[in-house]
Amino acid sequence: MSEFVFTVTHRDQKTQARLGIYQTPHGVIKTPAFVAVGTQASVKAIAPDDLKTIGTQVIIANTYHLHLRPGEDLIAQMGGLHRFMGWNGPMMTDSGGFQVFSLGAGNEHGVGKIASIFPEEQDPGGHLHPAARGESLVKLSEEGVEFRSHIDGSKRKFTPESVIEIQRKLGADIILVLDECTSPLHDYEYTRRAMERTHRWAKRALDAFRGKSAQASPQAIYGIVQGGAYQDLRFESAKFIANLKFDGIAIGGSLGKSKREMHQVLEWTMPLLPPEKPVHLLGIGTIEDIFEAVERGIDTFDCVAPTRQGRTGWLLCRESEDFQLNIYNSQHRQDSNPIDPSCDCYTCQHHSRAYLQHLFKAREPLAMRLATLHNLRFLEKLMEEIRAAIANGTLKELKNEWLKA
Amino acid sequence: MSEFVFTVTHRDQKTQARLGIYQTPHGVIKTPAFVAVGTQASVKAIAPDDLKTIGTQVIIANTYHLHLRPGEDLIAQMGGLHRFMGWNGPMMTDSGGFQVFSLGAGNEHGVGKIASIFPEEQDPGGHLHPAARGESLVKLSEEGVEFRSHIDGSKRKFTPESVIEIQRKLGADIILVLDECTSPLHDYEYTRRAMERTHRWAKRALDAFRGKSAQASPQAIYGIVQGGAYQDLRFESAKFIANLKFDGIAIGGSLGKSKREMHQVLEWTMPLLPPEKPVHLLGIGTIEDIFEAVERGIDTFDCVAPTRQGRTGWLLCRESEDFQLNIYNSQHRQDSNPIDPSCDCYTCQHHSRAYLQHLFKAREPLAMRLATLHNLRFLEKLMEEIRAAIANGTLKELKNEWLKA
Repeated sequence: MSEFVFTVTHRDQKTQARLGIYQTPHGVIKTPAFVAVGTQASVKAIAPDDLKTIGTQVIIANTYHLHLRPGEDLIAQMGGLHRFMGWNGPMMTDSGGFQVFSLGAGNEHGVGKIASIFPEEQDPGGHLHPAARGESLVKLSEEGVEFRSHIDGSKRKFTPESVIEIQRKLGADIILVLDECTSPLHDYEYTRRAMERTHRWAKRALDAFRGKSAQASPQAIYGIVQGGAYQDLRFESAKFIANLKFDGIAIGGSLGKSKREMHQVLEWTMPLLPPEKPVHLLGIGTIEDIFEAVERGIDTFDCVAPTRQGRTGWLLCRESEDFQLNIYNSQHRQDSNPIDPSCDCYTCQHHSRAYLQHLFKAREPLAMRLATLHNLRFLEKLMEEIRAAIANGTLKELKNEWLKA
Repeated sequence: MSEFVFTVTHRDQKTQARLGIYQTPHGVIKTPAFVAVGTQASVKAIAPDDLKTIGTQVIIANTYHLHLRPGEDLIAQMGGLHRFMGWNGPMMTDSGGFQVFSLGAGNEHGVGKIASIFPEEQDPGGHLHPAARGESLVKLSEEGVEFRSHIDGSKRKFTPESVIEIQRKLGADIILVLDECTSPLHDYEYTRRAMERTHRWAKRALDAFRGKSAQASPQAIYGIVQGGAYQDLRFESAKFIANLKFDGIAIGGSLGKSKREMHQVLEWTMPLLPPEKPVHLLGIGTIEDIFEAVERGIDTFDCVAPTRQGRTGWLLCRESEDFQLNIYNSQHRQDSNPIDPSCDCYTCQHHSRAYLQHLFKAREPLAMRLATLHNLRFLEKLMEEIRAAIANGTLKELKNEWLKA
């Protein structure tokens, strides 16, 4: 895999943070890096040229969604995901484990998606098929997982091997193994059994990946550390995954019910991972979480929140509580200021909070676009600041400046 | 009104087509020109920078929608419509007459809006309030028209004077008088009475417009010729409106039930209008209609079809029947071609029909954007060709090339 070279170029003195250069067949990722979410081969409401303007380095699409629609064979025929969607930069695909289980266990546990003013958002990726509403859709076995398509209710099956095959056809640069994604509401015993199965699946996935010599394109494969919020399980999982010949490691599963538990999961896991391999944290993205993860050595992370919450009117703003303002608030009705005066995005350079509130209230599709342009650029700028601060040895100061503000 | 200067620079030898330069306080419009529709202070799914890239010269927003939300007072406080929405080019506002009557008579006559895959499109401008569904919402009197807001069901009233006042606050460059917009299903007698009232309203509107010396910004006012598809009424209306001191003339109302009737309406009307004044045709926009209208001397025209139909997956294509293809058609599923190989828009330069079909099927908001970028650019390019052909005396040839293809 000489097409993939991860080089740690600098280590912070005071924290575990590190700067890296990650060479991929579709370009370089400067780490730590935010990975923008493009579930269905589109970062919602914006186009590849927008991503370049924003400074997005890498995106993550989703195997579950793309398998169901339009299907990996079509995408392969169209020259792979990069060509299909017109994004020439680095790309990952998530294995789809999270989606399979969140549509199953998520239904059971009420761990749903957030609501949105835009009707299509209430049902991300298309209307749930009647057969896919309200019931658990997932049948788990040692072999793999059976589920129903949320689109047409059809029965589908993922195995560790089939998910590798699908991702080969999709052709992203970095692919992930199928894992069982437990919820914070699963108990120790369940979480342990799921982790052990995930480990067996990881080996099978790796065998399937390494077994075939003729790959359509060079790809890197990541294993996923599981274990919920349980220390001994995280230890065991980190060691197990670290010992397999993955190109990188992802940290997945439940990160606990509180920020403190998330920090602990990282503190348990990170020291056990091979220092030369890139580490991806699945599904975090608040400003505070980003600082905490970067400080603990995370190289890349993805999160749907900036884009999805943006589309519901939550816009990132340095001055606001929790760094986001709700554009629907009456105080913005006549506010001629941009979302964030310090932001250099297109939206902040051209449009007022008053106009954005109008667009959201009037359900204008441009609202989604302007919100997404802003939230993604806001995060990219933060990542630029974070990388500069690591280089200068001022990460702690930057964090204090942001989090005490 | 020295801020507004319309100059006919060239007249076609074989048709009534003419080239013009229309100076407005926000820049020059080269005519004949297509006016892009930005009903709620946004051309749906695209931003002002996109309009510049497309080559859009002038847009039209809507008094009815903006009065209801966010309200003309807010927009005035925000510095007027140009500043509010970040569009610095020429802008018109429609009087809202069409919307008031299409939500009333349109309900009665079943002259509805077209359906869309995007839920918000089925209810343009926001969900219809329950009080605004299924019943006639319009009470007409000599004074004006009472109606219910489609947003909250509240009772509202437009008079010729109030609509001028609203449009002054909105501050578009070119504003239109309130007219009663009849449907093709109204009979002669009704159409005549409506026309006569529209004439009385036109005088009142002009008095209100000229009466106040202190305008927020220089504006041009257009009268509207009515009369349905009835020759004597169109004659009468054209002469009446031509004799008032309007800055320009719009041709409105029902243009009949067939293309031939539309041509007749123009042939009856155009010779009676003052040759020095710009003439706008309300609400047409198929490729064929554009040629027919331009040949008959129309300077500007607006139509929601390219944007609205684009959002439903009808994409303009020179090779297709009626110049549009339905992106959902199975033949496009694996089609790596752009929508139109001769198009220079962003979408055609970067994306295949297969990808667009996927985006539409997956209900991705990017579908709306890419479709709108394409359809609007496609029309602007056509208008560039038409203006060049008028200058070269080859308009007939261009029309034949397009319509016989």
